[in-house]
Amino acid sequence: MRINLLLSGDELMAGDIVDSNSALIARQLAPYGWRLQRKLTVGDNLALLTESLQLLSRDCDILLVNGGLGPTVDDLTAEALAKVCGVPLAEHPEALAHLQQWCERRNYILNNANRKQALLPAGCEIVRNPTGSAVGFTMPLNGCQVICTPGVPSELTAMLDQEILPALTARFPHGNGTLRRFALFGAGESTLQQQITEAFPHWPAGVELGFRAALPMLELKLGAPGPDGAAAVARAFERIQPLIADVLIGEDDTSMAERVVELLRTAGLRLTCAESCTGGGIAALLTRIPGASDVFDLGVVSYSNGAKQQLLAVGAETLAQHGAVSEPVVLEMAAGALRLSGADLAVAVSGIAGPGGGTPDKPVGTVWIAWGSADDLQARQFYVPMERALFQEYVSTIALDLIRRRLQGIAGEPRYLTRKRPERA
Amino acid sequence: MRINLLLSGDELMAGDIVDSNSALIARQLAPYGWRLQRKLTVGDNLALLTESLQLLSRDCDILLVNGGLGPTVDDLTAEALAKVCGVPLAEHPEALAHLQQWCERRNYILNNANRKQALLPAGCEIVRNPTGSAVGFTMPLNGCQVICTPGVPSELTAMLDQEILPALTARFPHGNGTLRRFALFGAGESTLQQQITEAFPHWPAGVELGFRAALPMLELKLGAPGPDGAAAVARAFERIQPLIADVLIGEDDTSMAERVVELLRTAGLRLTCAESCTGGGIAALLTRIPGASDVFDLGVVSYSNGAKQQLLAVGAETLAQHGAVSEPVVLEMAAGALRLSGADLAVAVSGIAGPGGGTPDKPVGTVWIAWGSADDLQARQFYVPMERALFQEYVSTIALDLIRRRLQGIAGEPRYLTRKRPERA
Repeated sequence: MRINLLLSGDELMAGDIVDSNSALIARQLAPYGWRLQRKLTVGDNLALLTESLQLLSRDCDILLVNGGLGPTVDDLTAEALAKVCGVPLAEHPEALAHLQQWCERRNYILNNANRKQALLPAGCEIVRNPTGSAVGFTMPLNGCQVICTPGVPSELTAMLDQEILPALTARFPHGNGTLRRFALFGAGESTLQQQITEAFPHWPAGVELGFRAALPMLELKLGAPGPDGAAAVARAFERIQPLIADVLIGEDDTSMAERVVELLRTAGLRLTCAESCTGGGIAALLTRIPGASDVFDLGVVSYSNGAKQQLLAVGAETLAQHGAVSEPVVLEMAAGALRLSGADLAVAVSGIAGPGGGTPDKPVGTVWIAWGSADDLQARQFYVPMERALFQEYVSTIALDLIRRRLQGIAGEPRYLTRKRPERA
Repeated sequence: MRINLLLSGDELMAGDIVDSNSALIARQLAPYGWRLQRKLTVGDNLALLTESLQLLSRDCDILLVNGGLGPTVDDLTAEALAKVCGVPLAEHPEALAHLQQWCERRNYILNNANRKQALLPAGCEIVRNPTGSAVGFTMPLNGCQVICTPGVPSELTAMLDQEILPALTARFPHGNGTLRRFALFGAGESTLQQQITEAFPHWPAGVELGFRAALPMLELKLGAPGPDGAAAVARAFERIQPLIADVLIGEDDTSMAERVVELLRTAGLRLTCAESCTGGGIAALLTRIPGASDVFDLGVVSYSNGAKQQLLAVGAETLAQHGAVSEPVVLEMAAGALRLSGADLAVAVSGIAGPGGGTPDKPVGTVWIAWGSADDLQARQFYVPMERALFQEYVSTIALDLIRRRLQGIAGEPRYLTRKRPERA
């Protein structure tokens, strides 16, 4: 089944609101193997709306229209559809009854603005609105079925769930195709694409491989249509698994922190962190996860040299001799955090987030990190040439990833640690 | 000038991500009086892309294309534009040089997948990408100028700011209307709208007043067309200023942390924080601001009772008697952080972020907060009935806002402190 989507609303064109309805619709369709073919958004303009209805109705089975059902003058969907179908607008008795009931239940008086919502293209069929005042409506156009839905997300959801999807699944065949999404960290999209292409020159034809940058993570998608889709995707995943084993964080929207909290909990270990350049970012990622208190007691944001000495007992001499962004300092920070917290594992970071503070020897983006247990601490230097906020998020995620790799017993060198410093100009 | 927008990406069609780029583009165009005419979104499909380029290029001056510039096989923008323009793809020397430099600076090896990003429609002109690997490119089609931009929001923003808008404003007439945006915190949209309507029944006809929820902040917009727009907006702002004085954080995208860092710096004061339920969120907000080290040395994430005792010298008895989410505990946390850091001001929070951990007396959403200096600490309880991540962001912002109000000498009660607990059923 081919589905197009037409969204209308000045607020969508002006950037006043972000369009979340189309993602909502797409996600509701996905379980049936249905995908939106194209999605057009226009402002509240009758000429653009009629033209778009003509255009989009020509190459699909279902044209979903969203928005423009309200009581105000800039709600033009019914008028546009009537015009394109060559029928007049007529007060629809069922729609009027719905409005009257809706107003009665709220002790509202049905005014003329509300009454406009019952003025629909003559001959259309009503789509019940389980929660709001504006009914939906549907009629055929150019061989496709146009279905007009309200812009209020809660009303749209209810109408999709209770009215539209039951009708569509009864009428159209729906594949039980499969789409699986995997969250990766520490893999480059282009490198991974090339590795897969090289390892599998004869990639299975029916299986779609896709990537999506969800910084700092990378999403890998495997999809296949039809009833055999699940098996085809499972086979494809098995084939590429060796290539992504080190960088696979989890399925769907698994976050790095979620994975680390889960691994720590399974291992019965507790983590602490001592942060300089990430400024609380590591602790914030961890504590965003419900139940983080099972594995995390205490974190320290030691932003100044004084704080590093005071809280973590980093030596004044170490700081003077090596500077705050150095191997000895992050090792002392990690050791200090372990002593302070009594945790089993620590991660400590110190780096130059920029935009200021860089030197020729330690340019902006330079990071030292230490991680491990009291008797087995490692430290490494790497380089993250990113804008400050992204730098902090990326370095925080790397800190958690190094803990993850240790807990999972992954040897080998993660790619991000191999990036040492910028080229000298 | 008529502008159309073509967005491409399977992830936009599948509902995997919400399209925030088109709102970003619309907001960047607005100050010049430019609006998007129509916006079409299609998946990564060559036939749909070429057809959409044909269609959208026919009735506009500028066709912005967003997405599909990446290194992988599903990035098809260059190929589609070449096809529609009837030219071959050719390796563009300037694009290749950019990619080489970009890889060199990161110690990457330029692989074939990366190299694909230099394969552009023959005869196109490069649009510099100030931050990312994929250059943009532009060429004429059907009497309009097609400009292809990257899907990564930070790269898109930089390219719009530094390359595309300067070029467009040089070439096309642009309204010198005025749009000013103000960041507010602690005001409700509907309440504020009503206050303004009541205070100014005769609102100046030419001045547009708008709101946008940018959680946890609220954006207020004042716009007026034409050469007198700036003066009209300034007059309107003067009129409403008394109504928003307490909640005005700054103009444009001023963040709460930015404002607080600036106020602290001006006052020559240093801030520390002791966080339980926000888990590092306050420190992370502060340290996201360049130069935060001028006003911030040290923060503590004391997530467990043990950490509160160990780091902040909160009394075991206090914890046992009142519980971690209580007035005496946040007062001791704040006092402990002040002793530890030597800072002038502290803020300390303890609350129940949920979803678990609530009790009938202290339901999920209950927060105690203490703030001030060693000799003048205040504590208050409030209630934030929000999902965990939003709860943490909102409470972190409130913590900074209380410091802001103190530094600005604002008396009065902020609205968020008046919300005490959920309604009992």
